[in-house]
Amino acid sequence: MTVEIVSIGTELLLGQIVDTNAAWLSARLAEIGVGVYRRTTVGDNRERIIGALQEALARADGVITIGGLGPTDDDLTREAIAAVLHEPLVLDENEAARLRAFFAARGRDANERQLRQALRPISALPIPNPNGTAPGLYAERDGKPIVAMPGPPNEFQPMATDHVLPRLAARTGGRVIRSRVLRLCGIGESDAEAQLHDLIASENPTLAPLAKLGEVHFRITARADSPEQAEQMIATMEREVRARLGASIFGADDTTLEQAVVQSLIAAGQSLVVAESCTGGLLANRITNVPGSSEVFLGGVVSYSNALKESLLGVPAETLAQYGAVSEPTARAMAEGVRQRLGGWWGVGITGIAGSGGGSPEKPVGLVYIGVSDPDTTVVKRQLFAGDRQTIKYRATQYALWLLYKGVQAGGCGSLSRL
Amino acid sequence: MTVEIVSIGTELLLGQIVDTNAAWLSARLAEIGVGVYRRTTVGDNRERIIGALQEALARADGVITIGGLGPTDDDLTREAIAAVLHEPLVLDENEAARLRAFFAARGRDANERQLRQALRPISALPIPNPNGTAPGLYAERDGKPIVAMPGPPNEFQPMATDHVLPRLAARTGGRVIRSRVLRLCGIGESDAEAQLHDLIASENPTLAPLAKLGEVHFRITARADSPEQAEQMIATMEREVRARLGASIFGADDTTLEQAVVQSLIAAGQSLVVAESCTGGLLANRITNVPGSSEVFLGGVVSYSNALKESLLGVPAETLAQYGAVSEPTARAMAEGVRQRLGGWWGVGITGIAGSGGGSPEKPVGLVYIGVSDPDTTVVKRQLFAGDRQTIKYRATQYALWLLYKGVQAGGCGSLSRL
Repeated sequence: MTVEIVSIGTELLLGQIVDTNAAWLSARLAEIGVGVYRRTTVGDNRERIIGALQEALARADGVITIGGLGPTDDDLTREAIAAVLHEPLVLDENEAARLRAFFAARGRDANERQLRQALRPISALPIPNPNGTAPGLYAERDGKPIVAMPGPPNEFQPMATDHVLPRLAARTGGRVIRSRVLRLCGIGESDAEAQLHDLIASENPTLAPLAKLGEVHFRITARADSPEQAEQMIATMEREVRARLGASIFGADDTTLEQAVVQSLIAAGQSLVVAESCTGGLLANRITNVPGSSEVFLGGVVSYSNALKESLLGVPAETLAQYGAVSEPTARAMAEGVRQRLGGWWGVGITGIAGSGGGSPEKPVGLVYIGVSDPDTTVVKRQLFAGDRQTIKYRATQYALWLLYKGVQAGGCGSLSRL
Repeated sequence: MTVEIVSIGTELLLGQIVDTNAAWLSARLAEIGVGVYRRTTVGDNRERIIGALQEALARADGVITIGGLGPTDDDLTREAIAAVLHEPLVLDENEAARLRAFFAARGRDANERQLRQALRPISALPIPNPNGTAPGLYAERDGKPIVAMPGPPNEFQPMATDHVLPRLAARTGGRVIRSRVLRLCGIGESDAEAQLHDLIASENPTLAPLAKLGEVHFRITARADSPEQAEQMIATMEREVRARLGASIFGADDTTLEQAVVQSLIAAGQSLVVAESCTGGLLANRITNVPGSSEVFLGGVVSYSNALKESLLGVPAETLAQYGAVSEPTARAMAEGVRQRLGGWWGVGITGIAGSGGGSPEKPVGLVYIGVSDPDTTVVKRQLFAGDRQTIKYRATQYALWLLYKGVQAGGCGSLSRL
């Protein structure tokens, strides 16, 4: 079964909001084996909505609209679907009663505009919306479903999950699609692809690379007649990828690098403290985004000024004077200083030039030194990152997390000098 | 002039990535008076790309594609445009030379796949891409432009800005669209809308609210025959909005709240230090995202553990024992302690429960105390934020930045007790 998605809203065409709904729904449809070969976005214009619906129904086995179901004059999805069905709009008494009760509970009367949301083409069923005022619509033309859902994600996602996806899944015969993402760090996309070249040529399951900032993802997607069969195909492909690139894989699916680090630290029973200069708190922020990170993350210092590098971390004034704040010795002193002063098993020190200003020929924007210290030893890496200020900050924290991850896995940071 | 946007990529249809490019381009086209009535997304399928292009050219005055220009077998945009033009693909020698030089500089040969990126339909011009390997394409059919740009945003956006938008703007006659966003904090969307109700009804310029996490935006959009006239209409509307809600406006267009804070601090010649517990470095990170923040931001402490609240900030052990880490006295001691120990004019202390665990009936998830301290006084605010862990962290930093902004504007934080 294939469907097309029609996103409706002039605010989309003006670029005022990004269509995350369509991406979310596309992913959910793929999971239940419903193919999407085209998505269309049109504005709040009755004729253009009708045109998009008719074209979609001519190509696909069904159409799902998102948006345009609210109470205002700009909300024209109901009218357009009625026109496509050649049906009149009638008031759904149940939905009208629900709307009146909704507004009565808020001390207001449901006005005529609000009650428009209870209109439906005569053959359509309303789809319950417990999170908002506008119900969805479920209709069929020549056996092809026409589904309409409201645009606010907190209404749209539950409606899709609870009502629309199960209904579509029940219509699809077999063909199940499952996928799994393997997440890699410390290796470039092209290097990784080169080592997986033959696997990337596979047709089912497929293996597709996706370059992300500071990491590389490979998505394995299997099409099969049952979930079990699809999972088995994925497992076989995953084993092969891990056999070749396992040293660069830190997690799967939604596992972030900071989650992998926190989980490794918890497993090792080791604590962490960080000292940040150019990354300005981003490393601590990423780590503390992980629920449960307080079990291993004690805290950190953002030593933006040289004075604080001295007073909070004990970086010697001579080191700063002789080598500068952005230098191997300063990163080393920061990592060791934060370990000792804040009392962690692991200490990280980052100093660099995030830009846009502050660069020089010897120390250009993007130059970052990252020190990792454990009770036995300290390793400092020099990196030159490309990008704007926030990108350089992110890449620096990504590299620091990767060093930490490999260090914890290896039982100490001595091994990092070989990375 | 109207154009349609065709986004190309199976990863879009599988929902693996969100199409931010199309929204960004739509907004830029609106600004130069080019209308977009439809956007289409298709996968990496030659026939479907051709179909989408032909349909778009039948409806609109031009078409812009995004994606599918890379070196892999899945990148089929060049082939599809050649088919629509009924033209052969030829190797663009300049682009081929550039690619060979690019790879030579990296110690590699440009292989055949990489050189595919230098192919173009014989009548098409390559559009320079200084940020990646694949050039864009500019062709025309029956006088209608067919523009192709690569998908990576760091390649796509500069190419659109430097080459494509100026070229399209030169083709458009009059009707210019300009817009300006006013950014508000410390006021809810519905309260703000209630005070601007009559203005929101205006047809030209329009005034449209947009709720963002922790702030509210109002976009003024004017349609006029000249840029000057449009700017004048916007200025008139802006004055009216500022007359009513000026106290809540911190900036316009892309100005973030952290930028407004840093600019205010620079103007006041005052420095800032921060102590974070539940926000875990996010406040420092947001501030240090602003170029030039090092002029006023000295540094901060992420005191995740109670031991570090005592040792780094001097929060009394009795305060922690008697009131707990999440309390008004602790936030006060953190703000005052970080001011004194790190030596800033302003000190901020944040302590709370970001979740998902750690809540209790008396101190639920989302409870946050935010202290702001200046040389004269300290004000602590208690807030209960809704959302998941990262949302609560963000809302807490947003509120802290808003307090700082208002405090710096007022010349001291004594005024904050009235907020």
